[in-house]
Amino acid sequence: MAFIHEDFMLSGPTARELYHAHAEHQPIIDYHCHLSPREVAEDIRFQNITELWLSADHYKWRAMRANGIPEEYVTGHTHTAWEVFEKWAETVPYAMRNPLYHWTHLELKRVFGIDKLLSPATAREIFDECNEKLKSPEYSGQALIRRFGVEVVCTTDDPADDLRWHKQIAEHPFGTKVLPTWRPDKAIAIENPAAYKEYLKQLGEAADKNINSYADLVEALQKRHDFFAQAGCKLSDHGLDTFHAADYTMLEIELIFKKVLLGKKPNTGERDKFYSALLHDLAVMDAETGWTQQFHVGPIRNNSSRLMRIAGPDTGFDSILDLEISAAGNRFFDHLDDEGKLAKTILYCLNPKDFEVMATMAGNFNDGSVPGKMQLGAGWWFLDQESGMRRQLDCLSQLNLLSRFVGMLTDSRSFISYTRHEYFRRILCDLVGADVDSGRLPASEMQRIGDMIEDVSYRNARDYFGF
Amino acid sequence: MAFIHEDFMLSGPTARELYHAHAEHQPIIDYHCHLSPREVAEDIRFQNITELWLSADHYKWRAMRANGIPEEYVTGHTHTAWEVFEKWAETVPYAMRNPLYHWTHLELKRVFGIDKLLSPATAREIFDECNEKLKSPEYSGQALIRRFGVEVVCTTDDPADDLRWHKQIAEHPFGTKVLPTWRPDKAIAIENPAAYKEYLKQLGEAADKNINSYADLVEALQKRHDFFAQAGCKLSDHGLDTFHAADYTMLEIELIFKKVLLGKKPNTGERDKFYSALLHDLAVMDAETGWTQQFHVGPIRNNSSRLMRIAGPDTGFDSILDLEISAAGNRFFDHLDDEGKLAKTILYCLNPKDFEVMATMAGNFNDGSVPGKMQLGAGWWFLDQESGMRRQLDCLSQLNLLSRFVGMLTDSRSFISYTRHEYFRRILCDLVGADVDSGRLPASEMQRIGDMIEDVSYRNARDYFGF
Amino acid sequence: MAFIHEDFMLSGPTARELYHAHAEHQPIIDYHCHLSPREVAEDIRFQNITELWLSADHYKWRAMRANGIPEEYVTGHTHTAWEVFEKWAETVPYAMRNPLYHWTHLELKRVFGIDKLLSPATAREIFDECNEKLKSPEYSGQALIRRFGVEVVCTTDDPADDLRWHKQIAEHPFGTKVLPTWRPDKAIAIENPAAYKEYLKQLGEAADKNINSYADLVEALQKRHDFFAQAGCKLSDHGLDTFHAADYTMLEIELIFKKVLLGKKPNTGERDKFYSALLHDLAVMDAETGWTQQFHVGPIRNNSSRLMRIAGPDTGFDSILDLEISAAGNRFFDHLDDEGKLAKTILYCLNPKDFEVMATMAGNFNDGSVPGKMQLGAGWWFLDQESGMRRQLDCLSQLNLLSRFVGMLTDSRSFISYTRHEYFRRILCDLVGADVDSGRLPASEMQRIGDMIEDVSYRNARDYFGF
Repeated sequence: MAFIHEDFMLSGPTARELYHAHAEHQPIIDYHCHLSPREVAEDIRFQNITELWLSADHYKWRAMRANGIPEEYVTGHTHTAWEVFEKWAETVPYAMRNPLYHWTHLELKRVFGIDKLLSPATAREIFDECNEKLKSPEYSGQALIRRFGVEVVCTTDDPADDLRWHKQIAEHPFGTKVLPTWRPDKAIAIENPAAYKEYLKQLGEAADKNINSYADLVEALQKRHDFFAQAGCKLSDHGLDTFHAADYTMLEIELIFKKVLLGKKPNTGERDKFYSALLHDLAVMDAETGWTQQFHVGPIRNNSSRLMRIAGPDTGFDSILDLEISAAGNRFFDHLDDEGKLAKTILYCLNPKDFEVMATMAGNFNDGSVPGKMQLGAGWWFLDQESGMRRQLDCLSQLNLLSRFVGMLTDSRSFISYTRHEYFRRILCDLVGADVDSGRLPASEMQRIGDMIEDVSYRNARDYFGF
Repeated sequence: MAFIHEDFMLSGPTARELYHAHAEHQPIIDYHCHLSPREVAEDIRFQNITELWLSADHYKWRAMRANGIPEEYVTGHTHTAWEVFEKWAETVPYAMRNPLYHWTHLELKRVFGIDKLLSPATAREIFDECNEKLKSPEYSGQALIRRFGVEVVCTTDDPADDLRWHKQIAEHPFGTKVLPTWRPDKAIAIENPAAYKEYLKQLGEAADKNINSYADLVEALQKRHDFFAQAGCKLSDHGLDTFHAADYTMLEIELIFKKVLLGKKPNTGERDKFYSALLHDLAVMDAETGWTQQFHVGPIRNNSSRLMRIAGPDTGFDSILDLEISAAGNRFFDHLDDEGKLAKTILYCLNPKDFEVMATMAGNFNDGSVPGKMQLGAGWWFLDQESGMRRQLDCLSQLNLLSRFVGMLTDSRSFISYTRHEYFRRILCDLVGADVDSGRLPASEMQRIGDMIEDVSYRNARDYFGF
Repeated sequence: MAFIHEDFMLSGPTARELYHAHAEHQPIIDYHCHLSPREVAEDIRFQNITELWLSADHYKWRAMRANGIPEEYVTGHTHTAWEVFEKWAETVPYAMRNPLYHWTHLELKRVFGIDKLLSPATAREIFDECNEKLKSPEYSGQALIRRFGVEVVCTTDDPADDLRWHKQIAEHPFGTKVLPTWRPDKAIAIENPAAYKEYLKQLGEAADKNINSYADLVEALQKRHDFFAQAGCKLSDHGLDTFHAADYTMLEIELIFKKVLLGKKPNTGERDKFYSALLHDLAVMDAETGWTQQFHVGPIRNNSSRLMRIAGPDTGFDSILDLEISAAGNRFFDHLDDEGKLAKTILYCLNPKDFEVMATMAGNFNDGSVPGKMQLGAGWWFLDQESGMRRQLDCLSQLNLLSRFVGMLTDSRSFISYTRHEYFRRILCDLVGADVDSGRLPASEMQRIGDMIEDVSYRNARDYFGF
């Protein structure tokens, strides 16, 4: 039997029934990813499987380094596609029990129809077969997205972005909606004054507005927010170390802003105040536009200065931070709620210690206005694997309502990682199916249970975001 | 087969044997709950199932809000009992995998003998059947308690309480001992000076003592402590954000107390010192009286200011805090132990990250004087569900001694939540039974294992608290 | 069937095959323990099972205290060996689900061939049988180590140690290499100036160097480091509350050192700076010598002052601390990596909240130079039991590479705790076997899977440490 067979990860009869009847064939709404809109618009073609798999995947890079593969094969660009692929093929058998082992073979199966397991022994034939197939138009970027039945893709975009590629896609539709997501991290990141000033210039140009004060900044961002809304944007997103909800006055914020414009690094307290103010003001914009706001909390980034110089940012040197999040998070959302400006909200944690804190924090701000108004997001990054997904699903089930969960997303820059939705759905069905088989859910309610699987796989996202 | 059948949640043969032979028929000692002594004394009658279920249950309220039910149906009092019940019935099918789904059907089965699953389709008939039964004297408050075989109930009471209802119950016994528990939270809560001064007046009146200094406060509390002891009280309880064990002098504490009497809010350091002092002095009283002290650590309360104004405190807007607890906790108990004033102690965490910290903290202060002298308490609040109970039981098993555990409590203000004891016992038996079936515990020792189940279900609590 | 039978804890067919074919017969490399080199060198003989089991085992002591056994039987030395053993035998049946229950019976079986379960009923016969066997030369310290097939033992030694016993063992080999490990905790512990100054005297004598400055200290340590290297040392180890990576100047460090020499306690910030500096300088030595450095992070020690006076340090009054570790840990290793001075590193946490933080921190510093260069260490102390091991193995599998794991260690001062390796291997095989049986690993890859089991059981440690 093939490793990736039809009942992969589905351990009981009910899990299988749920998956095949209610999950497998649902469309995909990938409401958070990092696909390049340009690559989508240009309908990118891949030269080879190395480019598709290994040119931008920090998960694989970390595994290769841990397996003793030198950096020259990882981000070095000094070896041929085959040489790099060979090193990855060497690593795969050593990645058993790592999610990469499943992802790799799921992608080989679903995208290339390959059942062989990747190893040094099979590397050459798999390399050749994949490369041959990649030549076909069925393997273009848009064709791959279409093949997976993706209805909507939300990319991740900077407020200064002109969204030209989104516009081009809208003008040349290919069956999948591709919408921007508002991610203003750079507009908040005052800790590096030089880079920040550089960014303000870009933002000012995009907004046609000179930014000389915090008030200017907010006005420029509001203009861009309106522009994103016109382009069909329905979500915002923030990448944060922790929540920020310090007390501040507008005078203080303006002085901190001035200080940064003068090239001076703000201290910790000033940074906290500024983040508190701007995140608040941005959240108000989201509420007023009816968007959903997302908070991704908990990474510590670019921890190896040496490899940062060699390989650049976002190349696999990030890990999990462990700050307190509860008091500031609750305070932040309370201020918004108190002003009637709390948008629909999804909270993602990178540190699993925060699952229960976030799930119960979300529970504090469900006011009956929208089902699942604030909720715990899917297992993210290091938690985007079987055990992380199970923890997230269990935590959300116990402390919020699983039935109202908007479900999975890829968070990926890859055109073939939609298999993560399959992976998630198999785990979801296995979890729920086991509850039925053990009598924890009533077997007499299979219709409601099937509906719940469909809702979480697809319909909740469709209805919640309002694309 | 009914959803709640005799082997509900008991997956193996040993689990079933343990439950039916050793757990099911044990009496209940509910050593921590929030029942109203007045409602017990007056042998409350319920008008309808909505009153019984939905008038004070913040778990259900949160689920309804998360399901998109407007507040007017939740705490609004603007709808009929039927209309509110209907909204709850709508929510139940959406609460699958949430503990409410089990609790609801356990209560329907045990209290009303109803096997139907609650949903919009069955709502009316269940509503009518329950309401009909509630008219019978078998459904009075005392009758419900008696039906569950409850030997002892410990309520939660303020030091200023005159315990008149406890006295009345003692004078008109109904088969279950109802004892007060000393919960001096308000005597410690100096962070709100206005409310605190108001409280001191009540406390002073109850103790017949003007409270103008910290020394007066301790004297007044000691008088009330004596009064509680005379009324049969055997436990104290504290609700805390984290432990407090700052250094302080009596002069400092008196100055902080004066400051608060002048209506000024103490700063964080002053609050920490005051909490350290008063919690210590209260702990000494407990030790001197032979009580057991309980510490419930980790909530952050009333996080939605807007709903606080609408619905008031304790209406479902609390969540999990994430402060450090280890250093201060160990220091606090060490001071007491060092003075020979460490009472029997039970530690409860709300944040699951604290399970192992607390279990090993408890291990530091077991000195052989009493079996299980300091121990990790049962899964509390958000952790009072299957996975929280399993984590607590596993953690306590591995880091302390399961055999010495005083077991479950309801922590509830409901007259029918004794099904939580059943729920706990089923999980306990399933856990231990699975260990036997997998060879992790020796099948030859079933007598000792059965004794352990009985001890944890009933006898340990009986022997430990000394009611 | 005996409780400890050949398939103990191996639940599926694949688990059994993996264990018996690939794990059971591998040699042991115990790369971190607390055996006394003197007891090894002198080939210690045990008077009785009480001495072997109960003279130095804080796990058993804690369990006895939790079971209500007075201290006089625990560390009191006022009772006969039989009386103490009887109290332990009383405790064992109450320790079901605690790892001690398994460890005890594993040791009875493997060391003494006893299948009986320890309880008051069997205590006398077991006591007598063990004591009789202990008279035989097959039960000497060296014979016990040999019997378990231990190839290498790394003890834990202070830099001031003259390593005379290691030398004696090397001169009279008995089949197992016994190497020292560099553990300079005392050289860093400036928080107690009196003890620190006393220690500096010892260290200075050992290094033949007067230590009047921080520079002297580092020079003396370097001399001892060289001496340890010559004695075959390949590992260092540090016991820490958390990581330290404060900014400092050499002038500041020298002033802090002077302050401590004057008998003044450093404040928290000064301690943090000093730890940052000296841990860094020690880490550089490890890198330059090609050693592996270990960091054991997270205990809070000697929490009961009263029992500390009665029973001394390290007698079972330590628990789990809960400080932040991520930012400082990443910064500490980044500084070293940036200087090209990052040694192979193993990170151990005591607080399970740190598993994912540490595993991903390790991932940041894998640069392809050595497979598994930085990795998450085995479940430690309170986490050295089935659930802790499973968490560690799962975390490492998901976030690093299980295949590159250097595996288990005893961390013990006992001559018979090598059964922990068996315990670990059974759990490892059960985990991996279950993955095969559930289709999460491909059954077609049993050869690679068997190799992985052998690697983790033995070969990875052999190759990684370079003994």
